[in-house]
Amino acid sequence: MKALTVIKVGGAVVEDNEALSAFLDDYVKYPGLKLLVHGGGRSATRMGEKLGIESRMVKGRRVTDAESLAVVTMVYGGLVNKNIVAQLQARGLNALGLTGADLNILEAGKRPPKDGIDWGWVGDVKKTNTNILANLIGQGISPVAAPLTHDGNGNMLNTNADTIASELAVGLSKHFSVKLIYCFEKKGVMADPDDENSLIREIRPNDFDPLRARGIIAGGMIAKLENCFAAIGRGVGEVMICHVGALAQAKPEGTVLRK
Amino acid sequence: MKALTVIKVGGAVVEDNEALSAFLDDYVKYPGLKLLVHGGGRSATRMGEKLGIESRMVKGRRVTDAESLAVVTMVYGGLVNKNIVAQLQARGLNALGLTGADLNILEAGKRPPKDGIDWGWVGDVKKTNTNILANLIGQGISPVAAPLTHDGNGNMLNTNADTIASELAVGLSKHFSVKLIYCFEKKGVMADPDDENSLIREIRPNDFDPLRARGIIAGGMIAKLENCFAAIGRGVGEVMICHVGALAQAKPEGTVLRK
Repeated sequence: MKALTVIKVGGAVVEDNEALSAFLDDYVKYPGLKLLVHGGGRSATRMGEKLGIESRMVKGRRVTDAESLAVVTMVYGGLVNKNIVAQLQARGLNALGLTGADLNILEAGKRPPKDGIDWGWVGDVKKTNTNILANLIGQGISPVAAPLTHDGNGNMLNTNADTIASELAVGLSKHFSVKLIYCFEKKGVMADPDDENSLIREIRPNDFDPLRARGIIAGGMIAKLENCFAAIGRGVGEVMICHVGALAQAKPEGTVLRK
Repeated sequence: MKALTVIKVGGAVVEDNEALSAFLDDYVKYPGLKLLVHGGGRSATRMGEKLGIESRMVKGRRVTDAESLAVVTMVYGGLVNKNIVAQLQARGLNALGLTGADLNILEAGKRPPKDGIDWGWVGDVKKTNTNILANLIGQGISPVAAPLTHDGNGNMLNTNADTIASELAVGLSKHFSVKLIYCFEKKGVMADPDDENSLIREIRPNDFDPLRARGIIAGGMIAKLENCFAAIGRGVGEVMICHVGALAQAKPEGTVLRK
């Protein structure tokens, strides 16, 4: 099987023109077939503010009422996605912007209210359809996926970008040998958040509980790593968590997760 | 060559939930391979108003400053396009939303200021790249194109939806026997706008100048028909201008333009 890298880049990068431009320079040089997943939450929050729509967040996730769904659909699927696609085309990469509704790549179910929270139009992925997508990637097309899915009943749904990345990585592992990279603003998982030199270079499933018990893996990183190990258990060869600048390195440095 | 129908539907339909739903019901039943091009100008104007961005129109066309470009990119490429794609998926049609930047299908040049009007980020199509698109259509994928192009330098551009439809129809006529249908709120070209029974059923190139001289083809219809005949001269087999409801007819009734 050919190799494919699924790279997820967070909102802080895609919403800063200079940072985005630098990232995309590195992205196009990154060797081999690749698929990009982007966030955009800060832009959605700002756009919501301008429109007088309040962003309600619970545990860092957006409660998505009908008005917020319209905002994320246009900001993620339109503004952020097309800006990235146009900039990749300018760099000679034949990009294709997608949401989960396009080519039906990500079918989701509207999340039922839980623990007293009605999440609104938030989608949990039920199924990926990757045959046509894999075929396009094999032809050298580089997909750019926005953090949106659909419910099969005509509604778009808001879905976390980390989840989109892991679900696509899993779905595409039927067709490719997939590596999943999460780029963010830190070097990876740090043993000591105050020590720049405390990068943990590798985490195996058995390391997870002890690291969590010691409080090294905490907060939002717990869900992120659970997501990563779930992907590894479902066909993804390797997951790396690294700084956005690491893509430019010959051997990107970060925290590698393996079976 | 297989037959392909390129259907353009205007903003008045796509921006009214009930009208859109009825149209999409007809669209999925319309036989054969097809590609949809949509407008969305009224939604963009409304969204601009909510954001305090004034829409400046000259001869019915939007002067697109940087702020307006952001609005049309998110409204056309995100909100309107993804709503249609999700609703087509719900009807069992495997839709793929596209702008001109996606798969580089429509390369455009920023329109230079003309007659004292700086159009801003408005794009005139320079080149269509339809090989991959034609391949997808041949696999049963139904593309949904937003009225946006890109300049190859990383910028999205605002391009009239009628033009998008005719350019894609021309580009795809290398791969398919293409029919182009413009759906709008009238039955077609009317000899007398006040007489519902005055539909002109066929217009040939030689009829154009006389009809124009008599004032029957006037206003925005002049540019529309010029667009149509240009498409016919460049490979499109037939153009029809008809009411949006005509798609449901076994033999859609409207004004047919032929060589």
